[in-house]
Amino acid sequence: MSLALFRRVHHLSTTAWSRAAQLPRVAEKKFYAIKGDVLEQVLPAFCAVAGEDGVSLGTAVREQHGRDESVHSCRPPDVVVWPRSVEEVSALAKICHRHRLPIVPFGTGTGLEGGVGAVKGGVCFSLRKMDRVLDLHQEDFDVTVEPGVTRKALNSYLRDTGLWFPVDPGADASLCGMAATSASGTNAVRYGTMRENVLNLEVVLADGTVLHTAGEGRRPRKTSAGYNLTNLFVGSEGTLGVLTKATLRLYGIPELMVSTVCSFPSVQAAVDSTVQVLQAGIPIARIEFLDDVMMDACNRFSGLSYAVSPTLFLEFHGSEKSLEEQVTITEDITRGNGGSDFSWAQDAETRGQLWKARHDAWYAALALRPGCKAYATDVCVPISLLPHIIVETKKDLTENRLTGPIAGHVGDGNFHCLMVLDPDDPDEVQRVHQFTERLARRALSLNGTCTGEHGVGLGKRALLQEEVGPLAIDVMRRLKATLDPENLMNPGKIL
Amino acid sequence: MSLALFRRVHHLSTTAWSRAAQLPRVAEKKFYAIKGDVLEQVLPAFCAVAGEDGVSLGTAVREQHGRDESVHSCRPPDVVVWPRSVEEVSALAKICHRHRLPIVPFGTGTGLEGGVGAVKGGVCFSLRKMDRVLDLHQEDFDVTVEPGVTRKALNSYLRDTGLWFPVDPGADASLCGMAATSASGTNAVRYGTMRENVLNLEVVLADGTVLHTAGEGRRPRKTSAGYNLTNLFVGSEGTLGVLTKATLRLYGIPELMVSTVCSFPSVQAAVDSTVQVLQAGIPIARIEFLDDVMMDACNRFSGLSYAVSPTLFLEFHGSEKSLEEQVTITEDITRGNGGSDFSWAQDAETRGQLWKARHDAWYAALALRPGCKAYATDVCVPISLLPHIIVETKKDLTENRLTGPIAGHVGDGNFHCLMVLDPDDPDEVQRVHQFTERLARRALSLNGTCTGEHGVGLGKRALLQEEVGPLAIDVMRRLKATLDPENLMNPGKIL
Repeated sequence: MSLALFRRVHHLSTTAWSRAAQLPRVAEKKFYAIKGDVLEQVLPAFCAVAGEDGVSLGTAVREQHGRDESVHSCRPPDVVVWPRSVEEVSALAKICHRHRLPIVPFGTGTGLEGGVGAVKGGVCFSLRKMDRVLDLHQEDFDVTVEPGVTRKALNSYLRDTGLWFPVDPGADASLCGMAATSASGTNAVRYGTMRENVLNLEVVLADGTVLHTAGEGRRPRKTSAGYNLTNLFVGSEGTLGVLTKATLRLYGIPELMVSTVCSFPSVQAAVDSTVQVLQAGIPIARIEFLDDVMMDACNRFSGLSYAVSPTLFLEFHGSEKSLEEQVTITEDITRGNGGSDFSWAQDAETRGQLWKARHDAWYAALALRPGCKAYATDVCVPISLLPHIIVETKKDLTENRLTGPIAGHVGDGNFHCLMVLDPDDPDEVQRVHQFTERLARRALSLNGTCTGEHGVGLGKRALLQEEVGPLAIDVMRRLKATLDPENLMNPGKIL
Repeated sequence: MSLALFRRVHHLSTTAWSRAAQLPRVAEKKFYAIKGDVLEQVLPAFCAVAGEDGVSLGTAVREQHGRDESVHSCRPPDVVVWPRSVEEVSALAKICHRHRLPIVPFGTGTGLEGGVGAVKGGVCFSLRKMDRVLDLHQEDFDVTVEPGVTRKALNSYLRDTGLWFPVDPGADASLCGMAATSASGTNAVRYGTMRENVLNLEVVLADGTVLHTAGEGRRPRKTSAGYNLTNLFVGSEGTLGVLTKATLRLYGIPELMVSTVCSFPSVQAAVDSTVQVLQAGIPIARIEFLDDVMMDACNRFSGLSYAVSPTLFLEFHGSEKSLEEQVTITEDITRGNGGSDFSWAQDAETRGQLWKARHDAWYAALALRPGCKAYATDVCVPISLLPHIIVETKKDLTENRLTGPIAGHVGDGNFHCLMVLDPDDPDEVQRVHQFTERLARRALSLNGTCTGEHGVGLGKRALLQEEVGPLAIDVMRRLKATLDPENLMNPGKIL
């Protein structure tokens, strides 16, 4: 049956159908998982659930949903659907389950490890239409959000409440996407990662059933009731189910925030300062490290004149008096390690300027080699081993003629080399790949992890095996098989 | 074969055997899971692994290992073994697996939900011989401990390092036991529960294999590498494996600690103060609530003269200046809610005296009715709902002529009624049981949990089903069956 006939048989209006399927492009596309006869069955079923404008076969749409911000090549799904409610997610998942079609959840596409690539084709569940903030409980410091709500949208919603959600991976990612990848970022040293800040999840499982990991509507701040299903799904990267709601912890917005910048004679001096700040019990909110190469790139990109040396960007949250003290003690510590005087700022605008270098790091790195692409590595080691691994890594970069300025969440021992490479130079691509593997193995040899916050996705599956060992991999595979015996949920990721 | 013959056949010395088996009592005891012929095979195998003094059949020993501090009746295991290393735990588990014998891990026996009762008999693994603190990394704020290390032993070990492990459930529990039950206590409002403070676990699974949940020796402060196996085992109450090592986060000991006590005209006023303190971003370390009945009991027991009204015990950690400010702001808040002037103390001794009432709460409750036993309920609700549930609960206590002073970790919405009851009065036991169920259901109706920190154990299995619903229970069952298909690991608990 031709697609035109298919449309007539199923009484879809020409407009609706061409909108849904972007007909002019249908001829160009290949289907990966869905055979023609299956397509004929599932498309009208999808349309019946999500509406005609909630389903698309268009090549451009599919390609847009087959990639994230990583350098992994685009792996478009066969179909994209836009459910509007958990009931629709469930109904769509049941159709997929019946026909054994892979399901790939899609939030904002800002992932960094190829998590949304439809490596086995199938159906992309774009969740952006489910974008309501539900059930804000100000006195209880919790809120429940649908999967299309991004962290900036939530914080904008919370603006007048005196509360905020502090986990900040940089990108304006969806909160459920952040939960799915166990995201964290600059504030984690004080407020924790998504692992510590999700109280409950609603999840549509592979068979379309709807699970509430801590029981429907439950939101105690702590519990020891049964297995911690919530944290089994946090970090599961869509491979165990589609997150359709997250209940999150909120925090009071600090009375004041102060930012400071301080440069050091060596990586060791910067890291020693970090350890001593933490040891002094200073509740530092952010403590970010940029290496000399990164600082140089930032100076050039943003017209700044920071010292071209290892630098810490710090942020303190609290009341006026406590900040005064935090800053004073910290400056004592940094001076003791040969750090420069603090540049510091309190009002939002000056803070923004001061942190501009850190915020623009990605673009500053890219600007080092116009026309190139960037890829962020993501290892995490015990803090005391940071100087060693950073020095080794910088040597490796130089020896292999690679551009990779370093930025890191140094309070957690987590850092990124922002690899700038020419994707059309196969030799350089190969050298970056090999460097990345060496870096990950270096972290593993220092009791660290191959991914502090980006997840495993497509590219780190072999490294995960080295990291956790065959028995843990076997346990993970058994958990996956238990919850998704047909391997339909984001297949080919993590394991 | 008689046990005496058995001993001779297996060349066990009389002394060793009688020490291991406490022969005079063997005749009295019943075996639950282990048949005579199986016993003949496994006993020498156990002795070969754990040594002759590492195995006991003695009735007294078994009874001592069949109960915790709850009111659940003693369910002694058939045998108690004391492995000295993970290799021995693994070897013993393999023997149990071969003979399909249940395994019940035992730390300090300070649990509160009957978690160590051998409801299907089997082998108790007492872990107290594995009591070494391993791999302290001061600069990285982490330490690895064997399962026999208690929290006080660890903090004593850390005394000169400037570091401490703050999770404090009251009892001097073993840290792996605390991990197994997802314990927390008074400091959780600031430092989190065991869920947030375990970085890695070594676990012997049902078949005797040794799993490292985050990979062997790994200790990054954060990771997003694969499924969060660590938090699957935290809170699993021995039903998925025996924890043989835990890597824990440590914290810098605060420069100063200040304690204060403040009484209020109503529960609402105390809880409102708590919410406002949290909203003001004050990094309060402990904020404990005692109701009027509890305060009265404490006054009598410890010869104190506190106001007999709802009372908050607070503790602030930080530097001198920050404490000054924390205390001032908090006192402003409590005054605004009709709170009394602060009694406050800074040096350890005076703080100890001030907190004496809170620390002695359990004994003060018991002293209300000499000769009676105590049982602690353990619900947790969103903070804003605390006044409602506490008022309802107090009414319920009065109506049912029950003694149940209330103490709570109010910053987390978690509170306990310390039920004092005559265990020989079946009517009262029944009334306490029914009260406990009503209390749990009241918490569930307010989006809370039936257990904030004690775990499910034996008594809350039906409540867990109500709390999380049939699908979550089914998922938990499937996870259990995946990791322990023969149901050997602490059977009859949680599910």
